[in-house]
Amino acid sequence: MGLRVLKFGGTSVGDVEKVKNVAARLAEAVDAGDEVVAVVSAMGKTTDELVGLSKSITTKPSPRELDMLLTTGEQVTTALLAMALQEMGYEAVSLTGWQAGLKTESVHGNARILDIDAKRMIRHLGEGKIVIVAGFQGLSDTEDIATLGRGGSDTTAVAIGAALKADRCEIYTDVDGVYTTDPRYVKGARKLSTISYDEMLELANLGAGVLHPRAVEFAKNFNIPLEVRSSFTNDTGTIIEEVASMEQNLVVRGLAFESNVTKITISGLPNEITTLPSLFSSLASNGINVDIIIQSTSQRNTTSISFSIETAALELTLDVLRRLEVKLPYENIFYESELAKVSIVGSGMISNPGVAAQMFEVLADHDVEIKMVSTSEIKVSTIVPEDKMIYAIETLHEQFQLDERTPVNQ
Amino acid sequence: MGLRVLKFGGTSVGDVEKVKNVAARLAEAVDAGDEVVAVVSAMGKTTDELVGLSKSITTKPSPRELDMLLTTGEQVTTALLAMALQEMGYEAVSLTGWQAGLKTESVHGNARILDIDAKRMIRHLGEGKIVIVAGFQGLSDTEDIATLGRGGSDTTAVAIGAALKADRCEIYTDVDGVYTTDPRYVKGARKLSTISYDEMLELANLGAGVLHPRAVEFAKNFNIPLEVRSSFTNDTGTIIEEVASMEQNLVVRGLAFESNVTKITISGLPNEITTLPSLFSSLASNGINVDIIIQSTSQRNTTSISFSIETAALELTLDVLRRLEVKLPYENIFYESELAKVSIVGSGMISNPGVAAQMFEVLADHDVEIKMVSTSEIKVSTIVPEDKMIYAIETLHEQFQLDERTPVNQ
Repeated sequence: MGLRVLKFGGTSVGDVEKVKNVAARLAEAVDAGDEVVAVVSAMGKTTDELVGLSKSITTKPSPRELDMLLTTGEQVTTALLAMALQEMGYEAVSLTGWQAGLKTESVHGNARILDIDAKRMIRHLGEGKIVIVAGFQGLSDTEDIATLGRGGSDTTAVAIGAALKADRCEIYTDVDGVYTTDPRYVKGARKLSTISYDEMLELANLGAGVLHPRAVEFAKNFNIPLEVRSSFTNDTGTIIEEVASMEQNLVVRGLAFESNVTKITISGLPNEITTLPSLFSSLASNGINVDIIIQSTSQRNTTSISFSIETAALELTLDVLRRLEVKLPYENIFYESELAKVSIVGSGMISNPGVAAQMFEVLADHDVEIKMVSTSEIKVSTIVPEDKMIYAIETLHEQFQLDERTPVNQ
Repeated sequence: MGLRVLKFGGTSVGDVEKVKNVAARLAEAVDAGDEVVAVVSAMGKTTDELVGLSKSITTKPSPRELDMLLTTGEQVTTALLAMALQEMGYEAVSLTGWQAGLKTESVHGNARILDIDAKRMIRHLGEGKIVIVAGFQGLSDTEDIATLGRGGSDTTAVAIGAALKADRCEIYTDVDGVYTTDPRYVKGARKLSTISYDEMLELANLGAGVLHPRAVEFAKNFNIPLEVRSSFTNDTGTIIEEVASMEQNLVVRGLAFESNVTKITISGLPNEITTLPSLFSSLASNGINVDIIIQSTSQRNTTSISFSIETAALELTLDVLRRLEVKLPYENIFYESELAKVSIVGSGMISNPGVAAQMFEVLADHDVEIKMVSTSEIKVSTIVPEDKMIYAIETLHEQFQLDERTPVNQ
C-alpha cells in the first residue's frame, strides 16, 4: 500500500507488555502490505529515573551530558521493540537518532532538526525490515548527541515522514483524537475527523496539548498528513491535513482555554519608540513568556501598556519591572490575577468577519466580562474571569454549534 | 606528568556514591598534572537488569539488538561521571565507543577491536578535558553498535592506551593486585609488585581472573605498562610490563589452580593423520573447550588420546563422542572427574630446566598423584585429584619460596 511512519509516546511503551502491543500493531501494518517506520520514546518513567540519577550528582547537569544520559532511554525501547518483532517472526532493525541520519543544531536540550540523511532507513526498508528509530534525538555537527526538547518525538516522526515522503504519519497517544474542546470539561465536546494544520497550530499553542506545535509546523511545511489516534483502541483518530475537506463549512472548529492568567497594566510610560522593545526585551531575557499585548491610546507624552502572563511568573515580572524603573520610568503598575484565556479557532473565520463580534456578543449576553482581546486570521482570544471560564466555553461550544453535527467517519 | 588511562569496572561504579569516588580519583590525577582518560563499565547490576528486560520479550534476542540494548548501560555511567567531575569544577566530556573512534569487527556480542581513530580524544585532551569513554563497545563497519564480549572494558582501556601512546593503563578492580596465588585459599599468598605480560597471560588463562587475557595480549603487543589496583584503597597495585625488573630472580612467579576438571581418555582410535583434527574439530564445533591434550604412543594401528575438559561439559562431550563413532571408530572411552589443574608460572623457567622436575618431585613427596602434565616455556601444569588441590598449592607455594620475600613497595 504505502509508507507509514508510526510514533509511540512514553505511555504507549510504558512496560514490556505495551511494547509487545506496539509490535503487534506494527506487524498488522506490515501484513496489510505497508512499509513501516516506527518512532519511539523512552519507556514510561525511564526519563524521570535518569533525571533522578543526575540530580543525585548535580543540581545543574551540563546540557550535553544530560542529553548523553537521557537518550539511552529511547535506545532501550528501540532494541526491545525490535526483539519483540523478531520474536513474532518479523524482520526489524533498531536505529539510534544518529544511525537514522538525524542531524541537529549544535544545541543541547532543545535542538532543532537540520536535516535527515535517510539513506540507511531506505536501505533497511528495501531489505523488507521494519525500521525502529529512537525519537527525541539526533547528532549535532560536532558529533554530539543532542535532544530535541519537548515534543521531540512527534517532530522526529514528522521529519522522518518528510524525508521518506511517507504517505502518512500517525501519532499514537493516550487521547483518541483532536476534539472541538477539552472533553474532560465540556460534555458536548466532539472528536473532529479532520482539521487543518493552521487550526491545529492555534489549538496546540492554546494548550490543547495533543501534538507539539513544532511537529505540526513541520508537517505543514512538508505537507505530510498527520493522524492523531489512540494507542489503546483501533478507532480512527483525527487527520490533520491541508484542506479540512469534510467539515469546511464549520466556521469555528475548536475552542481552547487555559487558566492561571494574570493581566498587568503599566501606566504613564514615556511615549517613545524605545519603550516597547525596552520593556519586552527585559521581560524576555528573564524568561517571562508574554502572551497578549495591548498598547492604549497615548495621552500627551505618556502611554499605557497591558499584557498577560502566566500567574506563576507574576512575582518575577513585578521584580523585573521594579528594577526597570531606573531606565524606563512609569506612573503605576496594576495587576489582576484569577483570569483565564478563552479562544475560538477556525480557518473559516478568514472569510467571515462577523465571528469575533458574535463571540463578544455571546459572552456579554451571558455576563462574562472581557478583559482583553487578541485576534489572528483564524483565532479570537479573550481574557475573562477564571471562575467563568468553563461556563464561557460551554456557552460558546453550544452557540457555535460544535456539538450538533457528527463527523462522517464516526 | 603523563597520559594515564584509568579503567573502572561495574563494582567500582556500582552506585552514585561510587561514581563520585571515581570522579575524586580522576580529579586527583588531574591535580597531579596528568592528562586523563577514563574507561567505565555499566553501573553494578544495570547489565543484568537490561538482560532481564530482553528475556521478558524473547529467549533468543538477536545479538545485534542485544548489543543495542546493553551498550546504553555504559553510556549512562559516562554521562553521570562527567557530571560528577563538572560538579567538582573539572572539565570533562563523555564519549560513547563510536564517538571515541573504536572500530570493531562486524560481529555482535564478541567483536574484536580493529582500530581506534583517536582524533576526537586527542582534541578533547588538548582542550584540557578529562575524557570518559564507554567501555565494552565500538562501531562495526556496517555502523552497528557492537560489544566486545567478556573483558571488553579492560580491552577498551588498553586499546585506547595504545592508540594514545599512554604512559600507563590502570585497571581498577575489586582486588588490589596480582598475587603469587589466590589469597582466599592460601594464607601465605603475596602481592607481586611487578609481573611480565607472558606470566600474567598464563595466570589469567589459568583462572586467576584479575585481567582478561585479551587485554593483557593487547598491552603486550603495544608495550603498554598495565597496573592492576583496587578502586577502594590508595595502595599501589601490581604493574604488568615487559621486564619484571624488581623480582627477576624469582623463577616461579605465581601459582594458578582450578577445580572441576575431568580427564577423558579414548583408546583404540585409528592411527591416521585425520584422527586428531576430526576429533577436536567436532568438539570445538560443539563449543567444548579442551585444555590439555596428550596423545599416547601408538600400538600397531591404533592410538590413544587423553584430554581434559571442564566437568560441566562432560555430558555434552560424551554425547558428541558417541555420535562421532560412526565416522571415527574407537575401542573405549574412560573418564575421571573430581580432578583439578595446578600450575606454576614464571618466565625464569626458560633458563631453568629443572623446575618442572622439581615440581613433580615436590608433589610426589607429598603423595599428590599427577594424572596429566602439560608444559610451556613459562608454565608447568599438572592435573591432580581435586581433594589435594589446595594442599598441592600450599606445598608448592612454600617450596618455591613464594611467601618469603616482601615486595619492595609494601
